[in-house]
Amino acid sequence: MRQAVDLKKAYRLLNHGPTVLVSSAYGDQRNVMAAAWSMPLDFDPPKITVVIDKNTLTRELVEASGEFALNIPARALAAVTEAVGNRSGRDGDKFAEFSLTTFEAEKIGAPLLDGCVGWLECKVIEERRNQDKYDLFIAEVVAAWADPCDFSNGHWHFESGRPRSIHYVAGGTFFETGEAFSVKEVNLPPPAAAFVD
Amino acid sequence: MRQAVDLKKAYRLLNHGPTVLVSSAYGDQRNVMAAAWSMPLDFDPPKITVVIDKNTLTRELVEASGEFALNIPARALAAVTEAVGNRSGRDGDKFAEFSLTTFEAEKIGAPLLDGCVGWLECKVIEERRNQDKYDLFIAEVVAAWADPCDFSNGHWHFESGRPRSIHYVAGGTFFETGEAFSVKEVNLPPPAAAFVD
Repeated sequence: MRQAVDLKKAYRLLNHGPTVLVSSAYGDQRNVMAAAWSMPLDFDPPKITVVIDKNTLTRELVEASGEFALNIPARALAAVTEAVGNRSGRDGDKFAEFSLTTFEAEKIGAPLLDGCVGWLECKVIEERRNQDKYDLFIAEVVAAWADPCDFSNGHWHFESGRPRSIHYVAGGTFFETGEAFSVKEVNLPPPAAAFVD
Repeated sequence: MRQAVDLKKAYRLLNHGPTVLVSSAYGDQRNVMAAAWSMPLDFDPPKITVVIDKNTLTRELVEASGEFALNIPARALAAVTEAVGNRSGRDGDKFAEFSLTTFEAEKIGAPLLDGCVGWLECKVIEERRNQDKYDLFIAEVVAAWADPCDFSNGHWHFESGRPRSIHYVAGGTFFETGEAFSVKEVNLPPPAAAFVD
């Protein structure tokens, strides 16, 4: 089951810094690549940034379509995440090669990947200098999705045994998203005044 | 013990998407704020991006000095991370309020915070449009540091019981950086050709 994520809360899908899969499509071409370098940029309307190298097929499809999706893979997709990060879509369709199944986005043409825990449909806000000089894309999030068992009301539910997101290091090594915890102000050192009276 | 991190590997301090503390200084003022929105932007020379809101004292100090540091807090600093993210340095020195101790950076004037697991000294690459329109800063990493017990040769050693980095969600809730794991290509579905012969 997938439900729409309130766009005002969409940034929270990315706030903890998971590695994402960037899916894209233009004409009869489609592609998917891995990106450890993405982050939220604004709350409302939600914007994100992502780095997409000039040499990638994804770059070509994103520049042509002005659209892409950030798919947040669960740990079961870690090997696929590593693999699609090391192959070019120019050498063959990665969806077929890795038996990836997809479903249709609502607002964009790029396919969304099954096996992920969240999805952000994005439209590029063209900033030529960033794109040309830094491979940096800014985009508005126009729709977002999650299974409410994984994410609802702006919070992840990994602690209930649901699949966790992942964080890429290098060379096929990842961290799983770890223990959730809350801090309270009472954990802080007492204000200096408490020592004075 | 702190050792310099090879600048070519400095991006790996941020690659897994930890929440950071941004420290800054100008004249006789200094400040520290929390930022969940930062990411690597380039490998060599290493560049990073971070979002610094217009209303913050940090923004003022960073614009004036052209410098800041990204400090990667360990879990023990989570309550402080939450607190410095909810207070303005204009209302009083947060280092004093939260008993934060610091040490000197090598290449910049901003102080570096004790209790962190990594530090990136950054010089702003001025991009006025990004700063003005998106609160987005691009900077070059000019020095980076870690205790080699926490991070060496481009890899974190959290699994050895060392303090872990943290990932902010919202409302005082964080994830700890979780289990490290490696994937191998053999975990992938076999190529379609294997089914054909």
